[in-house]
Amino acid sequence: MGRRIGLMQVDPTVGDLNGNAARLEHLAHLAAQHGASIGVTTELAISGYPPRDLLLQQEFISLCQESASSLNVPIPVLVGTPIEPQAKRQLPGNGVVRAGLSEAHPSGEGNSHVVARKQLLPTYDVFDEARYFHPDNRSGIARTIAQLNLGVTVCEDAWQAAELTPSSYSADPIEHLAEWGRQGVQLDASVNLSASPYHADKLSSRIQVCRTAARVLQHPFLLANQVGGNDDLLFDGNSLVAWPDGRVVIAPAWREGVLLVDIDDAENCLWVDSESPDALRIGDDEIRTLSSEEEGHEYDKELLEDLADAVVTGLSDYCRKSGISSIVLGLSGGIDSAVAACVAAAAVGPENVTGIAMPSRHSSQHSIDDARYTAESLGLVFDLIEIDSFHASVESSIGDMLRLGHSVASENLQARLRGLLVMAHANAQGRMAIATGNKSELAQGYCTLYGDMAGGYAPLGDLYKMQVYGLADVFNRRAEADGNTPPINQSTRTKPPSAELAPDQKDEDSLPPYPVLDAILYAHIEEGLDAKAIAEKGHSRDLVVEVLMRLERSEHKRWQMSPAPRVSNRAFGQGWRRPLASRHDWRH
Amino acid sequence: MGRRIGLMQVDPTVGDLNGNAARLEHLAHLAAQHGASIGVTTELAISGYPPRDLLLQQEFISLCQESASSLNVPIPVLVGTPIEPQAKRQLPGNGVVRAGLSEAHPSGEGNSHVVARKQLLPTYDVFDEARYFHPDNRSGIARTIAQLNLGVTVCEDAWQAAELTPSSYSADPIEHLAEWGRQGVQLDASVNLSASPYHADKLSSRIQVCRTAARVLQHPFLLANQVGGNDDLLFDGNSLVAWPDGRVVIAPAWREGVLLVDIDDAENCLWVDSESPDALRIGDDEIRTLSSEEEGHEYDKELLEDLADAVVTGLSDYCRKSGISSIVLGLSGGIDSAVAACVAAAAVGPENVTGIAMPSRHSSQHSIDDARYTAESLGLVFDLIEIDSFHASVESSIGDMLRLGHSVASENLQARLRGLLVMAHANAQGRMAIATGNKSELAQGYCTLYGDMAGGYAPLGDLYKMQVYGLADVFNRRAEADGNTPPINQSTRTKPPSAELAPDQKDEDSLPPYPVLDAILYAHIEEGLDAKAIAEKGHSRDLVVEVLMRLERSEHKRWQMSPAPRVSNRAFGQGWRRPLASRHDWRH
Repeated sequence: MGRRIGLMQVDPTVGDLNGNAARLEHLAHLAAQHGASIGVTTELAISGYPPRDLLLQQEFISLCQESASSLNVPIPVLVGTPIEPQAKRQLPGNGVVRAGLSEAHPSGEGNSHVVARKQLLPTYDVFDEARYFHPDNRSGIARTIAQLNLGVTVCEDAWQAAELTPSSYSADPIEHLAEWGRQGVQLDASVNLSASPYHADKLSSRIQVCRTAARVLQHPFLLANQVGGNDDLLFDGNSLVAWPDGRVVIAPAWREGVLLVDIDDAENCLWVDSESPDALRIGDDEIRTLSSEEEGHEYDKELLEDLADAVVTGLSDYCRKSGISSIVLGLSGGIDSAVAACVAAAAVGPENVTGIAMPSRHSSQHSIDDARYTAESLGLVFDLIEIDSFHASVESSIGDMLRLGHSVASENLQARLRGLLVMAHANAQGRMAIATGNKSELAQGYCTLYGDMAGGYAPLGDLYKMQVYGLADVFNRRAEADGNTPPINQSTRTKPPSAELAPDQKDEDSLPPYPVLDAILYAHIEEGLDAKAIAEKGHSRDLVVEVLMRLERSEHKRWQMSPAPRVSNRAFGQGWRRPLASRHDWRH
Repeated sequence: MGRRIGLMQVDPTVGDLNGNAARLEHLAHLAAQHGASIGVTTELAISGYPPRDLLLQQEFISLCQESASSLNVPIPVLVGTPIEPQAKRQLPGNGVVRAGLSEAHPSGEGNSHVVARKQLLPTYDVFDEARYFHPDNRSGIARTIAQLNLGVTVCEDAWQAAELTPSSYSADPIEHLAEWGRQGVQLDASVNLSASPYHADKLSSRIQVCRTAARVLQHPFLLANQVGGNDDLLFDGNSLVAWPDGRVVIAPAWREGVLLVDIDDAENCLWVDSESPDALRIGDDEIRTLSSEEEGHEYDKELLEDLADAVVTGLSDYCRKSGISSIVLGLSGGIDSAVAACVAAAAVGPENVTGIAMPSRHSSQHSIDDARYTAESLGLVFDLIEIDSFHASVESSIGDMLRLGHSVASENLQARLRGLLVMAHANAQGRMAIATGNKSELAQGYCTLYGDMAGGYAPLGDLYKMQVYGLADVFNRRAEADGNTPPINQSTRTKPPSAELAPDQKDEDSLPPYPVLDAILYAHIEEGLDAKAIAEKGHSRDLVVEVLMRLERSEHKRWQMSPAPRVSNRAFGQGWRRPLASRHDWRH
C-alpha cells in the first residue's frame, strides 16, 4: 500500500459548527481506519458553504477557526475554515488550518495552526467572496505534514490555470507551485479544498481543472468537494484526483464519505461511505475512473438521473437543515406537480407528504383522476378540496370588478385560492408548502405570485419544462426498479399542458410549444445569446423577441421567488441579479 | 464671477440609455446657461446605478460608452459610464468619459474619450462592484479640461482617505493626488462622480469624506451624487463641495438639478432645479451651507421629514420607472396602512390610489371608521369588502383541519384572503399592490407571507414601527400646512397595535412593546451588537434572545419580500444576505 490521503467529502450545515465538527471527526476516523496518513476537508467545511453574511460577525470567524483547529482527529487533517484577519480593518481569510497534530509531533512551522489562505476569490455568478474575504497573495503554499510534501490550494486557486473563470486573475497559484518545483522544491502531491457548486455537466469542468493542474505540476492533484444542499446551492461531491498522465478517479456524487487516494498507485483508491463501513475499491460501480483519453462529458449520459438526485438532495437537505419533516403541495394532475410530488416523496418519505387536488369549475375529471393516481402510487396522504364554492363566494362580492377588468384577475384568483388552501395545511400541520413551477414558466411569468408560486422551496424552479418530463421518466423507472407502480401515468405525461384556469385553456395559447420555448430560453439564459443570435439558430425573430420581453417583465415575480435548487448554469435568484425597475430595452 | 463647475445631480433609470442621455443633455444646458465651463455627472449616470447583471452583457457596455461619449452638450462634461475592458478576459471599467469636446478644441490627450476608471470597488453592504468591474490601479488621475486642472475620482475612490469603509483598501487615490501636488502638479479642484445610496444620516459621512479630501488636497473637492430610487436603492442627491477650510455647500436632496460651484468663491454657488428655470443662490433656503465648525449631523434635526421624502421618492420612482400609474392597498385602520396610504398618495396622486377596508369577524368598528377616515382625508378611492363570508366558506370546507391544527393557520387565512382581494384589484385594474408592513414586524416574522406581505413594493419595509408613527406626524403636518385634513386620526395614532386576526388580539401579546422591540432590533441589525451587548444596554437577556431567535426564524419570509426602499443602515433584502437553511445557533 502506498501513501494515502483521505478526501473528506462532507455535507455540512451552514452555521452548525458543532454538527459539522462531529461529521468531520467521523470522516477523519474513517480515513484513518483505511490507512490515510492525512485528511483533507472541503472549503469552509467547519462553517459550511456559503456562510454568507454570518461571515460579517467577528465572533463567528473566531469560533470557526477555533473549532476547526481543535477537531478531535486521529490523523492530521487540513480543515477549511474562515480565518481571523491579519491586520486591523482587514477582512477575514478563507483558509486552511491543520487539526490533529499533537504537541509530540511538532511541525516545525511555528505554533500557528494556519496552513493556507485562499488567493483567488470568485466574485461572479453565485459567488460573493470579495465581499467577505481578504485574498492572500503569497507565491504558492507548500507544507510538509505527516511526511508528505503538499501544495495547498483552495477551490478557485486552481481554476485560473485551466482558464475556466469568466475573467482572468492577476495571479495563478498553480503556476506559483510549479515555479517552486522548477526551483527544486519536491512536492508529493497538491490538494484543493473545494465547495464547487453543482450544475448540470459541471463535473467535466472540474475534471479539466484537476487534469490541468496535475499536468502543470507533474504530480497528483486531489480535490475534495462539498456535498449536499444549502438553500439554493447544491454541491454534488464528486471529489476527485487527476494524475499527470490524465488518469482520473472520481468519488460518488450526492453522498458523504471519504475518497482514499493512494498517491503512489491510482489502482489502489478506495471509497468509504459515511454511513456504511465497507470500503469500495475502484472498479466497483461506485467509483468512476477515466483513462487519459476519456473526457468527463461521457459521464453525462446519465444526466437526467443526476438531475433527479440533485433536486431530491436539494429538497431533502433543505428540510433536514431547516428542521422541516413534512411537506404539502397542490396536485393538479399535470406533469409539474406530479414530478414535484415524486421529489418530495423521495426527500422526506411519502408518508410525510400531503398532496391536495383542488379542482375548479375549469378542471377536467382527468385532472382529479391523475392527481389521485400519482398520490396513491407514491403513497402520499391525498386530499380533495373543490374550490368552486370559494371562487363563487369571492365572485359574488367583487364580480363586477372582475368582469370589468383584465381577465387574468379571475385566473389568478383560482390559483391564489389554491395557494391559500395549501398554506392553511402548511400552517395548521407544521408542514412546508412547496411550489411546483418550472423554470420555463417562471421565466415567462406564466405563474401566479402567491398562487402556484406559494411555498417555501421550489424543487423544479431551475428545471426547464422538457427536463421535468425527463424527470418523470426517471422517477417512473426508479419506481419500477423498486417493484412499485410508476407514479406518473400516461395521461399526465401526454396531455397538452394546461393551467385550467379558463375554459379549454392550453399553455400553447399563450406560449410557444415547450421544446421551442426551452430552446430559446436556454440560448438566452445559459448561453447568453441575444435575440439576433437566437433567431439565427432558426427561430422566428418575432417569437424570440416576444419570449425575451416576457422574460424581462417577469423579473419582479422572480425577485419574490422561494429558494430553488440550482441545477442549471444560470439559475434564477441570487445568481440572476438584474434591476427590476428597468423595463427599458436599452438595445433600441 | 469665478470659474464654475456644474455638478449634475441626475435621476437616471437603470437601462434607459436614451432617457438618461436626454436628462444629462438637459442638465448640461442648464449648467452652461449659468456659466459653468464644465459639467460633472454622477457615477454610471448613462446606465443608471445599479445596473447589476446588465453589466454582464458586452453589448450593453459598448452602447453605454458610446452614448456617454456622444452626448450633445454645449460644454465639456465628465460622464460616468461603464467602459469597455482593456484586455481579453478582463472585466469592464467603472469609468468616466468626456463628452462635448469638439474637434476644434483638441485636448491634447489623444483621441480616447476615456478620462478615468474607478480604482476602489466597494463590495460590501449593497455594493457588488468586484462582481462587475476591473479596478484601475494608476497613481492618481488628473486631467486638464476647459482650462481647469482637475483631479478625477469615482465615488469609493474618495472614501479610503476618510477611513469610512468597512475594511481598508491597499491604495488611496486621494493620497495619490496629494502626492502629485507635492511633486508640483497644480490642481484647481478635484471632482468625484458618485452614486452613494441613501440611508438616514448618510449625508454626514459624505461631508466627512469631502472635507477630508479637501483638507488633504488643499483645494475644493466636489461630489456629484445620483438622486432618486432604483428598485430598493434610494439616492438622496445632496451633491456637495467642501473647501480646505472646512466650509461646505450642499445641494437639495431628492431633486434633480445642477449645483453650480464657483471654485474661487464659496459664496457664489447656485442651484438650478431641473424643472424650474430660476437659479437659487446660497443663503436661500434650498442650499445648505456649513461653516468650518458645523457638523453635518445638525442637519438631521429634520430626519423624519427626510425619511418621508425618501420613501415617497422610492415608491414614486419605482412606479414611474416600471410603468405603473396606480396603486391598491388594504386599509386596516392601523398606523402602517394609514402611513403607507399617505406615501402612495404622495407618490402617484391620491386619485390613483384605491384603499380597501376588509373587516373580518375580529375587526372592530373603529377599524373601518379609521380606514375610511384616512381614505377620505387623502382623497383615495375607497372600497369596503367584508371577508367573513369567504372566511366562513373556507372554514366550512377545511374547518376540522384548522381546529385540529395550529391556531396561526386560521389567523393567516384571513390575511391571505385580504391579500387575494387586493391582488384581484391589482390584476383586474392594472394597479400595483403595495405591502404595508414595517421593518419591526418583518424582522419578527409577525406578518403573513402572501397575506399582508403581498404586493410589488413595501414602502415601509425598512422603517421601524416607531419611525412609522413619526412619519404619521409628518404627513399630518404636511396636510395641515397645505390646508388639508390631517389624514391620520387620533384613534389610529393612539390605539394599541393589533392584527385583529383573533378575538381581542394585541401585538403586545406576542411581541415586546414597540419602543423596546425597536431598540433591540436596531442594536442588533444596525449596530451589529450581539445578545450579550444588547442586554448590557438594560434589556432583559431572555427577551433579547427571544427577539433575536424570532429574527433568525423569519429569514425565510424576508427572502421572499418585495423590494423595500433602503432607509436604514442595514436594510433587509439584497443587503441582508444570510443563509436560510441554517437554523443553528453557532454561539452554543
